Amino acid sequence: MKVRVTVTLKAGVLDPQGKAIEGALKGLGFAGVEGARQGKIIDLILAETSADAARATVTDMCEKLLANTVIENYHIDILG
Amino acid sequence: MKVRVTVTLKAGVLDPQGKAIEGALKGLGFAGVEGARQGKIIDLILAETSADAARATVTDMCEKLLANTVIENYHIDILG
Repeated sequence: MKVRVTVTLKAGVLDPQGKAIEGALKGLGFAGVEGARQGKIIDLILAETSADAARATVTDMCEKLLANTVIENYHIDILG
Repeated sequence: MKVRVTVTLKAGVLDPQGKAIEGALKGLGFAGVEGARQGKIIDLILAETSADAARATVTDMCEKLLANTVIENYHIDILG
């Protein structure tokens, strides 16, 4: 089963990487950029065949390793 | 207009960060992990109000800065 985890910074958390991207885009002439935030995705392949069980397992993974829940949100998409 | 750019490594490109995640998950007892690949997302806020124009602009941004098209694929989602 393929699962995509999307990890994004919570609102209000400073994002220097996003700011750097925004600055670089403006430097390249893209004047209409009003904001940029960077996050990450983790694509997992699991032996699990049940979507519910996979979601439960991946939630556990996120809490324990994949996301820092103090400053980050995570979202789980079961891709099948 | 909000736009999400998803940048992933092309198939076949070595992904040490993904391998590290896979190893760490196994080390935590998640035995069913068969693969892990890491990618990134960039959430942009643009002054542009037309979805077509935004997609064209962001494609240009991806080609020039956001993705290394030699080893990475990018996907653009217009979030509205």
